[in-house]
Amino acid sequence: MSALRLALIGFGTVGQGLARILADRGADLRERYGLDVRITAVADLRCGSVHAADGLDPARLLAAAGADGTFDAVDAEDRGWDALTTIREAQADVVAELAFTDLATGEPALTHVRTALEHGRHVITTNKGPVALAWPELAATARRRGVRLEAEGTVMSGTPALHLGAELLAGAGVTRIEGILNGTTNYVLTRMEAGADFGEALAEAQAEGYAEADPSGDVEGIDAAGKVVILANRVMGAELTMADVAREGIAGLTRADVEAAAAAGERWKLIGRVERDGQTVRASVAPRRVPATHPLASVGGATNAVTYTTELLGDVTLIGPGAGKLATGYALIADLLAIHRATGGAA
Amino acid sequence: MSALRLALIGFGTVGQGLARILADRGADLRERYGLDVRITAVADLRCGSVHAADGLDPARLLAAAGADGTFDAVDAEDRGWDALTTIREAQADVVAELAFTDLATGEPALTHVRTALEHGRHVITTNKGPVALAWPELAATARRRGVRLEAEGTVMSGTPALHLGAELLAGAGVTRIEGILNGTTNYVLTRMEAGADFGEALAEAQAEGYAEADPSGDVEGIDAAGKVVILANRVMGAELTMADVAREGIAGLTRADVEAAAAAGERWKLIGRVERDGQTVRASVAPRRVPATHPLASVGGATNAVTYTTELLGDVTLIGPGAGKLATGYALIADLLAIHRATGGAA
Repeated sequence: MSALRLALIGFGTVGQGLARILADRGADLRERYGLDVRITAVADLRCGSVHAADGLDPARLLAAAGADGTFDAVDAEDRGWDALTTIREAQADVVAELAFTDLATGEPALTHVRTALEHGRHVITTNKGPVALAWPELAATARRRGVRLEAEGTVMSGTPALHLGAELLAGAGVTRIEGILNGTTNYVLTRMEAGADFGEALAEAQAEGYAEADPSGDVEGIDAAGKVVILANRVMGAELTMADVAREGIAGLTRADVEAAAAAGERWKLIGRVERDGQTVRASVAPRRVPATHPLASVGGATNAVTYTTELLGDVTLIGPGAGKLATGYALIADLLAIHRATGGAA
Repeated sequence: MSALRLALIGFGTVGQGLARILADRGADLRERYGLDVRITAVADLRCGSVHAADGLDPARLLAAAGADGTFDAVDAEDRGWDALTTIREAQADVVAELAFTDLATGEPALTHVRTALEHGRHVITTNKGPVALAWPELAATARRRGVRLEAEGTVMSGTPALHLGAELLAGAGVTRIEGILNGTTNYVLTRMEAGADFGEALAEAQAEGYAEADPSGDVEGIDAAGKVVILANRVMGAELTMADVAREGIAGLTRADVEAAAAAGERWKLIGRVERDGQTVRASVAPRRVPATHPLASVGGATNAVTYTTELLGDVTLIGPGAGKLATGYALIADLLAIHRATGGAA
């Protein structure tokens, strides 16, 4: 089949991770899996914007971003388009929305995603904002325009949790989803088991680069709540928003709590949970004591995991990385492969 | 899209599991996932054979098999076809090969699969024999005829290990696969950790229905070796056969071995392993001591698991059931969904 033409909105860590993978593995993806990706446009606030219908060399883009931090030296047909112009005007089948965003308004990423879908572009994104806040609206637009909205990188980075639940377990009857969806808090809890108190463990997480300077989004369970919403909507077909998630963080946990759990053969984990109960879907994030025999109990450090409870298979658990430049870049490859499969390419 | 017409070769436990799922969930699969499956033929040594181009009601087939054990009371256009006639003559897009087989010759399932592919039918199977013994030949035939060969149920029953490795991790660079692929031996090892000796544990596994009267295929690692071959060939594109697997069973393990591992914070597991080393792919089955922190260490009883080590994501582990009538029946649904996706159906 012909190449998938890709416009990147944002060329930060994730966009560069994707470009790195395409530079190193583009030929392999084409030859082994029939996935031929051609970057035709990039719009980035720092590097600037370039468009070339015949394609931009990912290695050249990386070199330019790494050298003087601009695309000035990259050959292009058009330059200086802003994100929305790029989405509307670039020759692209797929828009990768990788701009900054937040979990309060989802902007500007939400407008980017909405505009791309309305213009009949498939959208792939690693941004939780738009899909956690507006999945029902965006999914309806995608259906109406006959395009796909894929967001594998929003949950467990490139570990294919969403494609597992939504595609590979389709029809198995997922009744419950439980996951360790935030690496920072899991790292903190793992360190507390080794004897640190909450403040020490959080400082270590910050020193290791896991936690932000303002760690409240992680510690209060907001990040995990966004992922719970995405899981519920993508895998169970629910229509939840952030406000539907009952949420409790880990700041109240003490070393005494951690030791009491250990004495009972259990471990504290910040668990995101979605449960179907008839026509209702309930979602929560809260610290919970997990028996040591549960597959989630062994998930330590910054690793993430999700357990799907299904009617036909019982429990199916997926464990993998929850962050990382190449891991998150790979999430976009997984989404491109899904679009490739869905548009008639061989798997 | 139009219905996928399905011919079942074999109507034992797995075929009945599939029919049960289609009877209970056929409407849901059609409405939610666009997967419309119509059984047009069944050939079974005990129940007999029936063919109806307009479709056979799965509930009616189950009732007949459960009543007098024959399809005599099932309405049909044609009866009495043997398996090969059914494969050649039935109006079917997909042949589900569910007959008996073995890991020595793979027959008669191997001839069934080969014939179906040569006649341009997609093949789905839960039979290890044909795919462990003749994957390279069969895959080449499938490519030549433009059809798919799917065998999700041969490894970890309906837990989608093969689709995860071959589709969702495509391009992630799988360099190593390690798995607990045999439920019987894992059950025995788990019981030995609780204090049983090997003979007692094996007798318990037989009493629980996990182990056959002749448990040598499990205990000697032959079953796991077949699964290792399938993983290597399907996920890594290798061309291994059973003879390429270095194999050691668990009969030599003593309680003292198990206790020594526990004292070191480790657990004995029968590990199937595939490793890529340049152009070479090496495969083995052997009891190995796994650190308690490894995701495979927590996998107890008859549960199965596989860890894919990848260049872009590091380790990704999938844990789920390794057996069960509905679980194995669901493997065929997963394969039908993969064919549906690959032939242009929405995911």
